[in-house]
Amino acid sequence: MSDPLKSPRRRHLLAGSASALAAAGLGGFAGQAGAQAAAAAAPPAAAAGPKPLPAYAAWKDADSLIVHSSSTIETKRSAFGNSVITPSDRLYIRNNLPAPDASVLNDRDAWAVSVEGVRNPRQLTVGELKKMGIETVATVLQCSGNGRGYFPSKPSGTPWQVGAAGCVVWAGVPVRSVVEALGGVAGGMKFMTGTGGEKLPEGVDPKSVIVERSVPLAALQDALLAWEMNGEPLSLAHGGPLRLVVPGYTGVNNIKYVKRLAFTEAESDAKIMSHGYRITPPGGKADPSQASVLEMGVKSWVNSPLADSPLKAGPAVVTGVAFGGVNAVRKVEVSIDGGRSWREARLIGPDLGKYAWRQFALPVNLPAGTHVITSRATDAAGNVQPEQRMENSGGYNNASWADHAVKVTVA
Amino acid sequence: MSDPLKSPRRRHLLAGSASALAAAGLGGFAGQAGAQAAAAAAPPAAAAGPKPLPAYAAWKDADSLIVHSSSTIETKRSAFGNSVITPSDRLYIRNNLPAPDASVLNDRDAWAVSVEGVRNPRQLTVGELKKMGIETVATVLQCSGNGRGYFPSKPSGTPWQVGAAGCVVWAGVPVRSVVEALGGVAGGMKFMTGTGGEKLPEGVDPKSVIVERSVPLAALQDALLAWEMNGEPLSLAHGGPLRLVVPGYTGVNNIKYVKRLAFTEAESDAKIMSHGYRITPPGGKADPSQASVLEMGVKSWVNSPLADSPLKAGPAVVTGVAFGGVNAVRKVEVSIDGGRSWREARLIGPDLGKYAWRQFALPVNLPAGTHVITSRATDAAGNVQPEQRMENSGGYNNASWADHAVKVTVA
Repeated sequence: MSDPLKSPRRRHLLAGSASALAAAGLGGFAGQAGAQAAAAAAPPAAAAGPKPLPAYAAWKDADSLIVHSSSTIETKRSAFGNSVITPSDRLYIRNNLPAPDASVLNDRDAWAVSVEGVRNPRQLTVGELKKMGIETVATVLQCSGNGRGYFPSKPSGTPWQVGAAGCVVWAGVPVRSVVEALGGVAGGMKFMTGTGGEKLPEGVDPKSVIVERSVPLAALQDALLAWEMNGEPLSLAHGGPLRLVVPGYTGVNNIKYVKRLAFTEAESDAKIMSHGYRITPPGGKADPSQASVLEMGVKSWVNSPLADSPLKAGPAVVTGVAFGGVNAVRKVEVSIDGGRSWREARLIGPDLGKYAWRQFALPVNLPAGTHVITSRATDAAGNVQPEQRMENSGGYNNASWADHAVKVTVA
Repeated sequence: MSDPLKSPRRRHLLAGSASALAAAGLGGFAGQAGAQAAAAAAPPAAAAGPKPLPAYAAWKDADSLIVHSSSTIETKRSAFGNSVITPSDRLYIRNNLPAPDASVLNDRDAWAVSVEGVRNPRQLTVGELKKMGIETVATVLQCSGNGRGYFPSKPSGTPWQVGAAGCVVWAGVPVRSVVEALGGVAGGMKFMTGTGGEKLPEGVDPKSVIVERSVPLAALQDALLAWEMNGEPLSLAHGGPLRLVVPGYTGVNNIKYVKRLAFTEAESDAKIMSHGYRITPPGGKADPSQASVLEMGVKSWVNSPLADSPLKAGPAVVTGVAFGGVNAVRKVEVSIDGGRSWREARLIGPDLGKYAWRQFALPVNLPAGTHVITSRATDAAGNVQPEQRMENSGGYNNASWADHAVKVTVA
């Protein structure tokens, strides 16, 4: 909840063009390399002002967030800070279904998950899981559609800019410990399938709405059944009492309110798996033969300076975040000339492991004029963040460094 | 601010004996090895209920905190979680003077610190500091008197149990970068002296009340002038707009609202330095010849299970935190028989560097009966957490593993 003594309202940002863009749900600028300016493309500020936070997220820091809808809320690019971990009250929200009733938090330890596809399948409560072991992992949590707002094709779905992502710490029991305790995965299983415990709308085929996703079996090795995020019992907004955390995989694969964890021979036939989150060619229709949105790729972006930062000619520090999905970050380069030249930035702060993001910083000298600033990460496997987005009708997996560039004007 | 959707009020804890003890400001039990039970010593719950949070800390999570006074607030032992970082809204507060007026946060970048004892002394604003570099460091912040509540001698001062401590991430400019930019430390200087910017009460000698502390010059190497904590602009309660962070040193040496950073030939002659925070023999009077409370020592404690945990015979996981002050943690051992036998725990979660704490976990089997559970850390230099506190009249630096033991009853 926003409190002036904690973090005073930064009204100057609300008045700025980039935030106006954001409030209007319009994502930046066309993504050509050497790119067009976000600021230049900004429409006049919407008169209505920002949307309020929904009740289940009323504890969040409103000034740090852009409310697209009651189930789609992103972090402002200016609000990530430099302390590695994204505070819970600044973390984005994307719910595929309305959250369960808050009463599910009344007795957290009583929440039960059915573990299937193991030799000794059974239901386990959170209270029981807590006796089976504990591990802590820092992960980048990122919506599959983060960066969709930079697609000129304006795919349907929330026009996220950079802020449907954060880096958080989870605590829970390793899935592998649970599986071992239940005799191991049954023979022939190829997928780990999680099912969300949201209440389904009536009058529709459950398969058409249920949140159920399958990831390759190998992902169980680092997965957690988590009851805590950032040192606090997991909030309803982020999947409490229990969430399946699959490090390195996009947000939708990290099942909230998980009520079933099944090792299966085949992928789920729920629509969100069979047709949702598929890499569909532009103009095409989704089908199960297309690649699914699973592991995240290497990506980075600059968080400071931004188009609405007041800048005077002279020294400045370019900062941002970089992550490698399932790989660690090897290096980050920064360009202040739209990608014509690059200099390697310094990774700062503690390394929280390969699934976390790294913060980077590069001191630069900015003469008067306009500058297009961007960053390009390389992961430990040698994958380089691409210049161009991969076009797809759903607007998924945008890691383009050109799309994520910011244009700043120095007085 | 407490919100049921984020973290539902845990009223069962308020009704429990350990919390009742805590609310009454009574710290656990007498500290003999093989020790007496906290629970057994618990007085009836105070009828008045917990004190409310003061206005400047109203954004904190009341249910996670014990309010001793408006300037002394500790984290409940049950509220640390297992995610390494202590959330800002659960972090303890200890202010030596009332915080400055909240208006100092209106323009954070305008806050100025005078840097003295360098070749080119000058005043620098936070806005200027931000252009001089950025680093991030995770540190244990711990009040010098944390654990005072376990001294049977009942020293004057807040009877902290374990909760005047937390592990947080700071972002700011390295002091060494500032010093380099100003030509280096002037010749002959032996101390780094920070002065707080609190408003001083009128009618008293300023030296008798001002918050000004000196640490050995070498501490500048890892020190920060920090404007951010845990990813958010530094709150007023924790020293915003700007705090001197001296990793590995007790809280009082991390000067809030820092208005002067001076490299000096001698220690400050402010009373808080000359007579405050000295290791004074029991019954003696403080004087400047006695050792000052500076670097923290190796310490750990168990956070689960606690005396008020409902426990059934069978498997349980003992968890807690361990830190080495200026050294990394090498290992943590756990005893469930009051220190007669020990087993090495596993360090869990990401390693945030030598100044951070580590979380540890050990699966145990607890038969019915009572068990005295404690932990003992060893740092990278081979220092072992002591069994006994070092007696001193101020109740400082209590790292005794016997004092920090918990007695649990298993049904």
